[in-house]
Amino acid sequence: MEEASKNIMVIDTDCGVDDALAIMMAVSHDDWKVLCITCCYGNVNLNQVCQNVMRTLVVCGKHEVPVYKGCEKALVSNELLGSDYHSKDGFGGVASEFPTDCLQLASPEHASNVLVRLAREHRKHLVVVALGPLTNIAVAQRLDPEFTKNLKELVIMGGNINGFGNSYLAAEFNFASDPEAANILLKEAECPVTVIPLEVCHKYALDWNWLDDWRKTDTPRGYLVQKMTEHSINRARNIPGCNGLHLCDLFAMCVVVNPRVIVKKDEKCVYVELNGQLTRGMMVVERRLTHLPYVTNNVFIVMEFNKTELLKMFKKMIL
Amino acid sequence: MEEASKNIMVIDTDCGVDDALAIMMAVSHDDWKVLCITCCYGNVNLNQVCQNVMRTLVVCGKHEVPVYKGCEKALVSNELLGSDYHSKDGFGGVASEFPTDCLQLASPEHASNVLVRLAREHRKHLVVVALGPLTNIAVAQRLDPEFTKNLKELVIMGGNINGFGNSYLAAEFNFASDPEAANILLKEAECPVTVIPLEVCHKYALDWNWLDDWRKTDTPRGYLVQKMTEHSINRARNIPGCNGLHLCDLFAMCVVVNPRVIVKKDEKCVYVELNGQLTRGMMVVERRLTHLPYVTNNVFIVMEFNKTELLKMFKKMIL
Amino acid sequence: MEEASKNIMVIDTDCGVDDALAIMMAVSHDDWKVLCITCCYGNVNLNQVCQNVMRTLVVCGKHEVPVYKGCEKALVSNELLGSDYHSKDGFGGVASEFPTDCLQLASPEHASNVLVRLAREHRKHLVVVALGPLTNIAVAQRLDPEFTKNLKELVIMGGNINGFGNSYLAAEFNFASDPEAANILLKEAECPVTVIPLEVCHKYALDWNWLDDWRKTDTPRGYLVQKMTEHSINRARNIPGCNGLHLCDLFAMCVVVNPRVIVKKDEKCVYVELNGQLTRGMMVVERRLTHLPYVTNNVFIVMEFNKTELLKMFKKMIL
Amino acid sequence: MEEASKNIMVIDTDCGVDDALAIMMAVSHDDWKVLCITCCYGNVNLNQVCQNVMRTLVVCGKHEVPVYKGCEKALVSNELLGSDYHSKDGFGGVASEFPTDCLQLASPEHASNVLVRLAREHRKHLVVVALGPLTNIAVAQRLDPEFTKNLKELVIMGGNINGFGNSYLAAEFNFASDPEAANILLKEAECPVTVIPLEVCHKYALDWNWLDDWRKTDTPRGYLVQKMTEHSINRARNIPGCNGLHLCDLFAMCVVVNPRVIVKKDEKCVYVELNGQLTRGMMVVERRLTHLPYVTNNVFIVMEFNKTELLKMFKKMIL
Ligand SMILES: [Ca+2]
Ligand SMILES: [Ca+2]
Ligand SMILES: [Ca+2]
Ligand SMILES: [Ca+2]
Repeated sequence: MEEASKNIMVIDTDCGVDDALAIMMAVSHDDWKVLCITCCYGNVNLNQVCQNVMRTLVVCGKHEVPVYKGCEKALVSNELLGSDYHSKDGFGGVASEFPTDCLQLASPEHASNVLVRLAREHRKHLVVVALGPLTNIAVAQRLDPEFTKNLKELVIMGGNINGFGNSYLAAEFNFASDPEAANILLKEAECPVTVIPLEVCHKYALDWNWLDDWRKTDTPRGYLVQKMTEHSINRARNIPGCNGLHLCDLFAMCVVVNPRVIVKKDEKCVYVELNGQLTRGMMVVERRLTHLPYVTNNVFIVMEFNKTELLKMFKKMIL
Repeated sequence: MEEASKNIMVIDTDCGVDDALAIMMAVSHDDWKVLCITCCYGNVNLNQVCQNVMRTLVVCGKHEVPVYKGCEKALVSNELLGSDYHSKDGFGGVASEFPTDCLQLASPEHASNVLVRLAREHRKHLVVVALGPLTNIAVAQRLDPEFTKNLKELVIMGGNINGFGNSYLAAEFNFASDPEAANILLKEAECPVTVIPLEVCHKYALDWNWLDDWRKTDTPRGYLVQKMTEHSINRARNIPGCNGLHLCDLFAMCVVVNPRVIVKKDEKCVYVELNGQLTRGMMVVERRLTHLPYVTNNVFIVMEFNKTELLKMFKKMIL
Repeated sequence: MEEASKNIMVIDTDCGVDDALAIMMAVSHDDWKVLCITCCYGNVNLNQVCQNVMRTLVVCGKHEVPVYKGCEKALVSNELLGSDYHSKDGFGGVASEFPTDCLQLASPEHASNVLVRLAREHRKHLVVVALGPLTNIAVAQRLDPEFTKNLKELVIMGGNINGFGNSYLAAEFNFASDPEAANILLKEAECPVTVIPLEVCHKYALDWNWLDDWRKTDTPRGYLVQKMTEHSINRARNIPGCNGLHLCDLFAMCVVVNPRVIVKKDEKCVYVELNGQLTRGMMVVERRLTHLPYVTNNVFIVMEFNKTELLKMFKKMIL
Repeated sequence: MEEASKNIMVIDTDCGVDDALAIMMAVSHDDWKVLCITCCYGNVNLNQVCQNVMRTLVVCGKHEVPVYKGCEKALVSNELLGSDYHSKDGFGGVASEFPTDCLQLASPEHASNVLVRLAREHRKHLVVVALGPLTNIAVAQRLDPEFTKNLKELVIMGGNINGFGNSYLAAEFNFASDPEAANILLKEAECPVTVIPLEVCHKYALDWNWLDDWRKTDTPRGYLVQKMTEHSINRARNIPGCNGLHLCDLFAMCVVVNPRVIVKKDEKCVYVELNGQLTRGMMVVERRLTHLPYVTNNVFIVMEFNKTELLKMFKKMIL
């Protein structure tokens, strides 16, 4: 496809395993151009995130995608959750096996400035896909109040709809890592916002058998998948009642590059709780029938996926 | 059944329409003795609540059940929600048609003192059924730290499990009316606690046809049902997307007098959010598989009902 | 003085050293009758508090003053601060040297019920002097919304005016122990309320020389003072910059039995912060000139003492 | 003085009347060079702030000082206080009388980026003087975690020490406008921080007589002072109990250009309350003797001024 007619996106990520898979998905689609990848602290610290992005690009043969460094910590809170969910290196413990070659940051320009600049250059054409804490994107909004107005769409993996938490008791990791940033975007965004919430991703866990099969694919990308997912699979299989692997960021990227994976999405008015002692970072959805129709802060929440289509995409991506 | 072998309960209520139906259900079961009814502010103010309880007892021919007055407001907050959900009189707007005869408060003894006294007198035999804000019961716990230890069981209509709210955005009315009281009981109760949450009640809405049929029953109790529910039904039918009437307190009472209506109940660790700006009063359920097994603050949450059994009970109750 | 013409008070206390001195001060005034002493958790646990009250009454030869037990914990929070400020026994570590004789609780009646009862019996004549967390008194207000309306005055040792804290960073111990109870009374009280705040008490520290002299008084009460204060004095002398002993509750009692000790009191609108992460329990005083005149929630705050008068009272009390 | 040997500062301001006077003070000192002025929303909206800065520079004949635009709103909160404290135009209602000539923004570079850039260019030499909400400076810290480490000093007019508020009940305007930004800087700053708090400024109010005299100075700057302060003086004289004008930002600038005005400063550990319902934005000072010595989050708080020196500076500034 000709460059000029491609869709364009920036991926903002705290590159763990599912972020890496999401990047792989994005660069596998010829009708999309990834303008750059902006990095944010999250699963691991900022430097490790940058490294993980670069090693993913190397495996995918996409050395030309510029990588930028963003925020080291949340807008306000110090609640750096860290997490060894994706192992200490955020890359399933196999980071050292995948070199970053001579890849470097494109420039010292801060991710938030990059986002502001690209949104202005590609007014109404740029899709921002947020796969980590929303700090970089919120700072962009503070640097330029027109930032989101300049976007085509903001797609967010994050938040929850039923008060189910992964990191915290009642909040999803990305939102819990920077509740204020999430709130700024949900409240102020002047472009369409699509949210892929935690519980919906969990509903479509990849089961052990399917994973076994998938991970046998004998290609460079398949090899990365095989190695990178081993830690998470072992971890998940040891949790009683856990019936599969959750690759949330990968699902979010599928929504971007192939909207047909969405079976149902709801337009809802949502908020982020900033003050709870138990619920800080929780996404709160207005669901009272007596409050319809919603007219402010509306976002589209993906509620159901076409799992067959998803699995097909996952297989194809690593060929 | 002989008095001595009966099960015994106290009903604590903010008597609206579904509370009245719950009282009717309770006094219809010969194997249960209602020791007394304690009144709490809530749907309407405290005096109106007392009146509504009395007029319900009159219709049911149970003049002998003592009625006591409790708290006028929440333990801490001033968030008296009031609500015309059950109309201004809390009784579907028909309160004036159902006289309270010469019924009087049994004595000026405060509901919380009554609860403490009866729990001591019937150590480990008394079931307390809470159908309103939990203020009276929390004050009882402060007056006697052994109060809940002396109970057989505490059954609570209240709270929510998925952050769905009726009064507030993310909280159920009874818990939202006095979050601190709810929290005290969920945290400190030393007897088994059974919670009938909002969303589960909503799942078993009574549909318009069934209601039409039910409300034709030509008995004194049937007449009360017919008159009392009219307001709520009209209100609910006008809400787009609303597919039936929710009679939460009635469901909770069925759980007490006939545990066979429970198809599924989960033992969970729960909390109440006290500080959120959006989620104050929300019941927060620990659901992370990684946090199993739960060992503190556990309660039984009724998750599924046998609707056939419920409907049978509702029909029989008014004959 | 004839019984009938005496002023009457109830002392609500978490009996530490300065509470014991306050009780001694109260029973030393022939024109005042202490109707009873109600006990609250606080400096030490509730049972220890009751014991400390009784041993103080024994030393003072006032076996006839009834003692009642109240709340074991705060209305809402679990922030039992405990404190070895007055040593582990709350009595300067010398509790065991002062027997309680055969003193018993007057009856199992709960302190809050006692307060409600006495306020009704002595409508508009009873002064309640609060020397600990305000839990018992707040529960009384919930048991009877007319409770404070029935009082002549409520005198509270507690709160702060400049955000200076003793227990917490920015809150005074009694208020920090039960912020909600303090708030209920400051917001709902329908009788005059006089507050003796922390900073004002600290301004009138008793210096080491004066204390040395005072503690040499060779009387039974003097002996109790000598023994009981030793721990606090040793503790305070070791704090760099500390220039004397603070006996807050004793100051508060002087205000009750001899209003001439007050040189200045301000009428102010005050609140209690319930939600701060740093300031929970802080008393917040409206001081903006632009908000004058204050018309709601007004209390009298004692701002300046006549120290000469105070010291004279302290000396006389132990003769 | 030679350019190279001058001290250098950036002024970050929400230019109201006292900010304008502070700017005048800064540019009056030949041993200081004002590298630029960065603008922040606050007393008035961002555009008005920029205009007010420019008209002040014009009166002072300092057209060459670059002016940059920063944030339009707080990092997180929406609590845009606005205020007509300095009248609607933030300039005492006389803005229109003082043209901005053809002054323009130096470039569209965002204030926070400018701050980051200058701090890097003048490592350890730049003093930032913050006279408004701290949003621009906090965003700079997020754009570059080394930002404050690169500064020589951060001087902040803002915060309070005794819970006295001007805008809010218990918080000072600049901190209350963006509590999170204030907190970020007080917690994270790696350079010396000097705070000039509200109550200390208020202690040195300029009395009416002195002001009358001052405002008669017949110079261009004197004329600006005369016109600009009239609104505030009239306002203040009508507040019962108000005994003079408070020119907080001007005092803060004196601290920068002439440290001899400081008679007493304390090194303290401070925090900002982010969560209170009454105290949000309050600066909380650790003052418990038992917590000495302070070792974290220390700042220097100016506690006493040499008023004679201050008044001398004020007179000289407008000659
Ligand atoms: Ca991620
Ligand atoms: Ca009810
Ligand atoms: Ca005390
Ligand atoms: Ca200013």
